[in-house]
Amino acid sequence: MAITVVGSVAYDSIETPAGRRDRCLGGAATYFSLAASFFTDVRVIAVVGEDFGPEQEAVFEARKIDTRGIERAAGKSFFWEGSYLDSLNEAKTHQTDLNVFASFEPKIPAAYIDSEFLFLANIDPVLQRRVREAMPNVKLVAGDTMNYWIKDHRPALLEVLKGLDVLLINDTETRMLAGNKNIVRAARAVMAMGPRALVVKHGEYGASLFHSTAFDGKSSETFKVPALPLDEVVDPTGAGDSFAGGFFGYLAAQSELTPGAFRRAMFYGSTMGSFACERFGTERLQQLSRAEIDDRFRVFRELTHLD
Amino acid sequence: MAITVVGSVAYDSIETPAGRRDRCLGGAATYFSLAASFFTDVRVIAVVGEDFGPEQEAVFEARKIDTRGIERAAGKSFFWEGSYLDSLNEAKTHQTDLNVFASFEPKIPAAYIDSEFLFLANIDPVLQRRVREAMPNVKLVAGDTMNYWIKDHRPALLEVLKGLDVLLINDTETRMLAGNKNIVRAARAVMAMGPRALVVKHGEYGASLFHSTAFDGKSSETFKVPALPLDEVVDPTGAGDSFAGGFFGYLAAQSELTPGAFRRAMFYGSTMGSFACERFGTERLQQLSRAEIDDRFRVFRELTHLD
Repeated sequence: MAITVVGSVAYDSIETPAGRRDRCLGGAATYFSLAASFFTDVRVIAVVGEDFGPEQEAVFEARKIDTRGIERAAGKSFFWEGSYLDSLNEAKTHQTDLNVFASFEPKIPAAYIDSEFLFLANIDPVLQRRVREAMPNVKLVAGDTMNYWIKDHRPALLEVLKGLDVLLINDTETRMLAGNKNIVRAARAVMAMGPRALVVKHGEYGASLFHSTAFDGKSSETFKVPALPLDEVVDPTGAGDSFAGGFFGYLAAQSELTPGAFRRAMFYGSTMGSFACERFGTERLQQLSRAEIDDRFRVFRELTHLD
Repeated sequence: MAITVVGSVAYDSIETPAGRRDRCLGGAATYFSLAASFFTDVRVIAVVGEDFGPEQEAVFEARKIDTRGIERAAGKSFFWEGSYLDSLNEAKTHQTDLNVFASFEPKIPAAYIDSEFLFLANIDPVLQRRVREAMPNVKLVAGDTMNYWIKDHRPALLEVLKGLDVLLINDTETRMLAGNKNIVRAARAVMAMGPRALVVKHGEYGASLFHSTAFDGKSSETFKVPALPLDEVVDPTGAGDSFAGGFFGYLAAQSELTPGAFRRAMFYGSTMGSFACERFGTERLQQLSRAEIDDRFRVFRELTHLD
């Protein structure tokens, strides 16, 4: 089943201990859709500037991602510059230029309306809500957010959370949103705000899935997946969005949303996150095959299973 | 098969968000031996002062732990005071009084000499080495250490590492010991110092097992176990030592040290660590049954396994 994703398509300048890349293709919706495209059809809603050319367009086309919802506006694309020189777990942001994103008004192509899955990547909750309301018939809605919206745009964010089935955020964001340091209690508090499931991303320590009531109506549960121990993390940019893409892409490809499907989705999420870190920007996701993904899924099984 | 453990038996004063306990029984060898005692026979080598009375002795007796190697010396027992008010992941030490531990000279009772497993808890590496050399016929030796020894007693510690089969330390210690921020490369560097296996403890994120060559001579491997998400961490003191006790205790009870045995040992380690956090000091470990341990082992399986 098709996923529509709304979020940023951007240029990133990134510095890590492994080197530097200037103005490479980035943005949450880019990483998400590349990762999800290995599992199902993906349709993107975003805005880019006049600097978004055929070379960038080709990255989406190569993965058969529907870009009819990527609007071209006068001006420059969203630009982010950051570095990971002190810690690969957290980016130090040097510059954020919203550019055309500052006046982004998401428009949903008619061809997207029958999408059964919707992913609201990390953007202004007012826009997330608008897209959510424009697509009332979707079967499953997941979303992301960040500290800035949690702190300074809480009422708008709380409205979005009411309409979410699954929220994917990190430890710090979970604790901040709930106002509770204990992650189990914080997860419960966040789920009381709307989402039936919460995926807490722990960076190099993997991720936890919390279910209030499992999607088949059975008992609640918690599930853990590690991150793959990598010899070299070349660039962690987009790892969380790639996790979300693998997780949600896998779910969208299932006929039934069983607890087992959610567990496997967590494994595919961590699998896609691990690939994203292996090269700069979207380089690794662009070079990937489904066979490599399934091989790595088996590596994760070997890494965690007793028998 | 019996384990001999050398390490501290102490009094702890602990403050956490859940409350406070003054001068409760603590020490690495105490937590380790209580946890390991659910799996196999345990023999302790330590020194205590005149303040160590029948009440403390009874805690060991109740678990049939051999205390003939606990020497009584003139003076007071090792005392530690710490709090976890800001973070449950790291203790803030307020006071450390070595007391009788300052002049500790480990003496090994004749009845301990046939122990096939040896655990060198976190003490001066000079003492760890002395005990190791006095027990040349043990089948498997594991040990722990801390930042202080890594930074200021490196040559003595490196001598200990040469004689270790398994080292159990945390992330920070692993990176510090190896001088490498990447945990995979750091693990490889640490294993090049001697240990064939390294268990890196990640606190609330569980633990990783790195094998240079698996103990059955087959290929190397990595294995991950999460920590149990707890509604309330009452007191994390001794969680790492309880992990070590569960891990090593389980191994000592196996007829063969297969990779599967190591994987299950990781699960039992995390299981015992989770119990330790549920109440203050050793309270939970004193009240535990093997049936509860095996129930929780199954909870860990459910938490991590796809099917």
